[in-house]
Amino acid sequence: MNLSIPSTMRAAQILNYDGSPDSIQVVEKSVPQPGPNQVLVQMARVPINPSDLMFLKGLYGVKKELPVAPGWEGSGRVVASGGGWMGKFLVGKRVACAARTTGDGTWAEYLMTDATRCVPLSNALNDEQGAMLIVNPLTAWALMDIAARSGSPAFVQTAAASALGRMILRLSLKRGVPGIHVVRRDEQAALLKSLGATHVLNSADPDFDQQLRALCSQLNAKIGFEAVAGEMTGRVLNAMPAGSRLLVYGALSESGCLTDPRDLIFEGKRLEGFFLASWLGRRSILQQLRLGRQVQSMLGEDLKSDVQARFPLTQAREALIHYQNHMTDGKVLLMMDETSQNP
Amino acid sequence: MNLSIPSTMRAAQILNYDGSPDSIQVVEKSVPQPGPNQVLVQMARVPINPSDLMFLKGLYGVKKELPVAPGWEGSGRVVASGGGWMGKFLVGKRVACAARTTGDGTWAEYLMTDATRCVPLSNALNDEQGAMLIVNPLTAWALMDIAARSGSPAFVQTAAASALGRMILRLSLKRGVPGIHVVRRDEQAALLKSLGATHVLNSADPDFDQQLRALCSQLNAKIGFEAVAGEMTGRVLNAMPAGSRLLVYGALSESGCLTDPRDLIFEGKRLEGFFLASWLGRRSILQQLRLGRQVQSMLGEDLKSDVQARFPLTQAREALIHYQNHMTDGKVLLMMDETSQNP
Repeated sequence: MNLSIPSTMRAAQILNYDGSPDSIQVVEKSVPQPGPNQVLVQMARVPINPSDLMFLKGLYGVKKELPVAPGWEGSGRVVASGGGWMGKFLVGKRVACAARTTGDGTWAEYLMTDATRCVPLSNALNDEQGAMLIVNPLTAWALMDIAARSGSPAFVQTAAASALGRMILRLSLKRGVPGIHVVRRDEQAALLKSLGATHVLNSADPDFDQQLRALCSQLNAKIGFEAVAGEMTGRVLNAMPAGSRLLVYGALSESGCLTDPRDLIFEGKRLEGFFLASWLGRRSILQQLRLGRQVQSMLGEDLKSDVQARFPLTQAREALIHYQNHMTDGKVLLMMDETSQNP
Repeated sequence: MNLSIPSTMRAAQILNYDGSPDSIQVVEKSVPQPGPNQVLVQMARVPINPSDLMFLKGLYGVKKELPVAPGWEGSGRVVASGGGWMGKFLVGKRVACAARTTGDGTWAEYLMTDATRCVPLSNALNDEQGAMLIVNPLTAWALMDIAARSGSPAFVQTAAASALGRMILRLSLKRGVPGIHVVRRDEQAALLKSLGATHVLNSADPDFDQQLRALCSQLNAKIGFEAVAGEMTGRVLNAMPAGSRLLVYGALSESGCLTDPRDLIFEGKRLEGFFLASWLGRRSILQQLRLGRQVQSMLGEDLKSDVQARFPLTQAREALIHYQNHMTDGKVLLMMDETSQNP
């Protein structure tokens, strides 16, 4: 296969971690060279995720050397391999890919990453849904897997109206696992109910805590997924039955998790975390590939992401502003090639 | 055996949960009747513990109907049984005993409790050390057991100058397990060093966090025991290596536990709790009896409690005030019978 690779590319990069869209500039830089077991992906579509916002503010668990292109996932075609059986196998294939924890991320025309961070895409899946395969669908899948293994007959989740929260809802409906979905606005509650949710609570309601406690007790929800942090962590943990586990996977409030020590001491409740990269890292390459196929087969339905807007890479700044102002209206995508044949 | 039991007894009881010594009054009330599998203990010595202070303020995990006699442990002699093989076995024996989660506690001349909450005392142990057998020595033993099973080569503990913290130190020295001991005053650090501690940190030092991080990393301390709560929980968790577990067993600051969500998410750290009653409840009666013997054999040395003052039950209020003002100077004991032959 003869895939011509230019020597330079466009990339959106940040100069500091102040989180402002103004810190983003689109520059021309060298196309990276893949080393052994690495590949070069010509990017097609890249979503903006909540984890990107955390990264831009320097609040993500991984801080890279500046300047750097943000972006943790996307889709594209593998155009070169630096060697290794997996890398060679991938050349020419369309993939969903995740960025490494060092060096430029996916907000660029080319991404150099580990072959193991790529999932070959089936023909049934377009670049757009493929771009959003890893962070949200795999996380939803992983959390439902954790819920199933926990032995708890039900679960509770916060930030339930987010793209990820809605995937968790759809997966749980398909599997028949009762969930308690916490949102913070009435229109979000209406949206989740329209998707089939039975138990939706608005944390802004004055009797939210009592309602949550009653539902957690009624359904015996002893596992929870929390993405708000701050006081919400402790309110949810407090409402859950004795012996419950609450997994924090996000911190939308950008605050510390505040928990009542008595819930930990006398009630045997536990506070843990969830990080997709760690969860995947505990699985073999073959398990990851099988997982990638399973999740892809559901992307058309239960794990589908809604797209609200598309911007060319050159307008990364505008795309970010739009996303910040409409976070629960659907995904915002960056398009690397404005004339792509695979929309 | 003919043990005469009066119909009434003296008890120190509280009328409300405001935590003030003024809410304590010594009254005359009926001696309770043990039911099946319960015993009546004629109390000899009763310590005042930090958990009692929490209970008096209504901050303990268990809130009893008022008015009620506080007190979670003590020593005495079983004078009656309500039936059951364990209860009958105990009649006439000196025991360490713990109060039930309902009804009057140990701040009284007689305690009605479950037979399973009594540990027969060996002749080598006097009523005074026996009175402090359960809460602190068994907790120290349990925490060191958890540390050993965790696979972590070292541990960290806060409130290390407390009676319990010093027991943990002595046990860990005996077992050769390196510990990092966090105190909040220089004289406490000096005390622990005089007891043989190598790594003692003062949380009031300006570079405490860096010191703690360096030591946790150097010793690979991946398990911790935390009794302060508030910001201290998050500071300790943050300083510990990835994958660490921090067990909260107290809340001396009377604040919520504040933790950085990134420690949970990206570092895989966990926040748990420890409650002696729950830990013991997961053990069989035979395991508990064996444990009671093991711990008793160490009470003379590694698990010995220092007594700083003794008060008759009628001066429970004064005893409490004294303890509140001298919490780390040793235990304060209530003596039920001022003419006891077994000091």
